[in-house]
Amino acid sequence: MGKTLPTDPAPYFTAHVFVCGNRRPEGHDRGCCASKGSEKLRDYMKARAKELGIKGVRINQSGCLDRCELGPCAVIYPEGVWYRLDSREAVDEILQKHIVEGGRVPTQMLDQPS
Amino acid sequence: MGKTLPTDPAPYFTAHVFVCGNRRPEGHDRGCCASKGSEKLRDYMKARAKELGIKGVRINQSGCLDRCELGPCAVIYPEGVWYRLDSREAVDEILQKHIVEGGRVPTQMLDQPS
Repeated sequence: MGKTLPTDPAPYFTAHVFVCGNRRPEGHDRGCCASKGSEKLRDYMKARAKELGIKGVRINQSGCLDRCELGPCAVIYPEGVWYRLDSREAVDEILQKHIVEGGRVPTQMLDQPS
Repeated sequence: MGKTLPTDPAPYFTAHVFVCGNRRPEGHDRGCCASKGSEKLRDYMKARAKELGIKGVRINQSGCLDRCELGPCAVIYPEGVWYRLDSREAVDEILQKHIVEGGRVPTQMLDQPS
């Protein structure tokens, strides 16, 4: 379960980003990523990745990623690294350090690196 | 780019499935997954996974995965294996063989295994 097999095809996208776009009614206990601006930040991330000429990356909206309290949330696969995407500056840093350079942005990570 | 680092946190979900829920206007050249029933198949997959008691798996809807002509499309991470999700039987087989047993369902894969 959850393991790559030696016969698996090559990855279709080098980095596949999913940004939670879930919207709940106002006043819901758990809140939601859309009320914290996730849709505009996803649009910004997509546009910036294109402007920067980053290839092989797709930046999708998704349904509820179920980490609402920590949002706006995004996850980057195949690494499975989760980020709080709460400003344009955070988006820029994640694009540059994680996607382009292959590093991490610990200050924005939902789960701390070891 | 796209590589796991030794310091990365443990995966939050053992298997994270994204099912394309994109809907385009009727008559669009590329078609879309929603017009081929992807939304109901995603709901079915989510319900079946729950009925089967599969833990650690999340089955999300996503925006356009950009493989419209091959849809209804789904991708399972962190493996990054893509499937055509075109019937309840396909959903059952993918849940059992891929998610539960850690194998593959080559007849439904968008990219052939080597």
